[in-house]
Amino acid sequence: MLNDAYPSRQDQQATITPRQDPVLYSEITENAPVTSELLEQFERQGYMLLPDLFSPNEVAAFLHAIKTLEQDEALLKTPQAVTEANSGALRSVFQIHENHSLFASVAKDARITDIARFILGGDVYIHQSRLNFKPGLKGKEFYWHSDFETWHVEDGMPHMRALSCSILLTDNNAKNGALMLMPGSHKEYLSCIGDTPKDNYLQSLKQQEFGIPDDASLNHLAQKYGIDCAEAKAGSVLFFDCNTLHGSNSNITPDPRSNLFFVFNHMNNKVTTPFCAQPPRPEFIATRNNIKAI
Amino acid sequence: MLNDAYPSRQDQQATITPRQDPVLYSEITENAPVTSELLEQFERQGYMLLPDLFSPNEVAAFLHAIKTLEQDEALLKTPQAVTEANSGALRSVFQIHENHSLFASVAKDARITDIARFILGGDVYIHQSRLNFKPGLKGKEFYWHSDFETWHVEDGMPHMRALSCSILLTDNNAKNGALMLMPGSHKEYLSCIGDTPKDNYLQSLKQQEFGIPDDASLNHLAQKYGIDCAEAKAGSVLFFDCNTLHGSNSNITPDPRSNLFFVFNHMNNKVTTPFCAQPPRPEFIATRNNIKAI
Repeated sequence: MLNDAYPSRQDQQATITPRQDPVLYSEITENAPVTSELLEQFERQGYMLLPDLFSPNEVAAFLHAIKTLEQDEALLKTPQAVTEANSGALRSVFQIHENHSLFASVAKDARITDIARFILGGDVYIHQSRLNFKPGLKGKEFYWHSDFETWHVEDGMPHMRALSCSILLTDNNAKNGALMLMPGSHKEYLSCIGDTPKDNYLQSLKQQEFGIPDDASLNHLAQKYGIDCAEAKAGSVLFFDCNTLHGSNSNITPDPRSNLFFVFNHMNNKVTTPFCAQPPRPEFIATRNNIKAI
Repeated sequence: MLNDAYPSRQDQQATITPRQDPVLYSEITENAPVTSELLEQFERQGYMLLPDLFSPNEVAAFLHAIKTLEQDEALLKTPQAVTEANSGALRSVFQIHENHSLFASVAKDARITDIARFILGGDVYIHQSRLNFKPGLKGKEFYWHSDFETWHVEDGMPHMRALSCSILLTDNNAKNGALMLMPGSHKEYLSCIGDTPKDNYLQSLKQQEFGIPDDASLNHLAQKYGIDCAEAKAGSVLFFDCNTLHGSNSNITPDPRSNLFFVFNHMNNKVTTPFCAQPPRPEFIATRNNIKAI
């Protein structure tokens, strides 16, 4: 097993330690795929928002495809389809870059992959992909977490050299549970308290109970960094670092908050043995075998 | 039993019918306690927001009193104290106008009672009072509802001649679960589907499952009226009509969203026999015996 650069869930005490990895792995030049202002913001805040990267027609096609998925009884019975804990409403569909031709092509779209490659400094592959629904009226909150903490502990991702790209399929605002982020929190690593139970993912994809930050640390970090809300129109794209603390509230408005998520990881940062005592999570949640540079 | 002007929970089909009662029971003159613009807004939208009605010093005193209540082990064991369904965190304390000297005096403060008397057209009493916490990190959503529907069916309030006055004790914004309202929805009455179970209040104060609007009606009314979010600083006061549809999302931010609530009802609109087959709810939720004009 590799040296564990970011221990977590090994102690009854949370710790906050400095990030040991870069955020931006390329030098900003005139040839960068987005403005230096945006890249500097990504480096500083751990996220950036690109308005209107996809056209209304493209978004309409994505939404049409989702409507079909929602009615796909066979899909709903697969582990890739995750439902809400209480209502049974569809919450997420995983591995859409492998199992859906339209979303597979979106995963390779140069408008996003050029940016991912630039930020991560070279060839990347998809560590995880999913559709997130947060349906109107019934969508529940997703509690604060660093993706990296989970990907490190449960998947064995060695370093912070990954990012999420979220394509907004509906208008996202604070009222319908837009993603909230703590800008700057990606520069520190917050370890979590406690252990990782067996098959944690079966529960954690619905409602996370392990690998979540403790109250005192969250209070401290929210005080230090503040909380931004990623409000933007459908077709906009949010890029955020793998270690930026984020979460979202419930959605009692009738307007669904649906997003496509693609997680890009650098080819030199492939997952290894998980940094916990459990076996790796399944391939549809964390690519381990079928790694292909895009 | 009085004629049931607003039947609900008697059918398997929701109905939307016009309001039969006025909203504003006084004529707007120069002597009104607030501007005609605000009163016209209340009439039209079913709510109005008065910034900074209470001073920072007053708010500090209220918050100090609440801190004491949160640590009051004896209080926490009374039915007046309602906890969150999952976390056990304090969610509400009822009947604060009777059981707490500071909040009893706030309930009589002319800055709010003059407005309540003006809108409702005469002498009023307190039908219900409560502290609502929505604690940071753990606060859960409160689903869409018309207060009047519950007060009518479960308490026997005959007509729409009541209002809520919410004094904001912390800054309320969309991120920490500020109240959302459908402006104009108070002009229609939405009946709910199904029955009222015995002792419904024991569950409904934590999480409402009966007397909640159906999905199709909510979609329709949100489309028709839109959704406003009552964002305002601590010390501001929100007045809203008893029939305005409202609700709030969860609060994963560390900032609590705490409000004082006083429900004023006109003396001619005292509660009678409930308009359902159940006995009345307890006095601490709905004043029935101890009615005093204020």
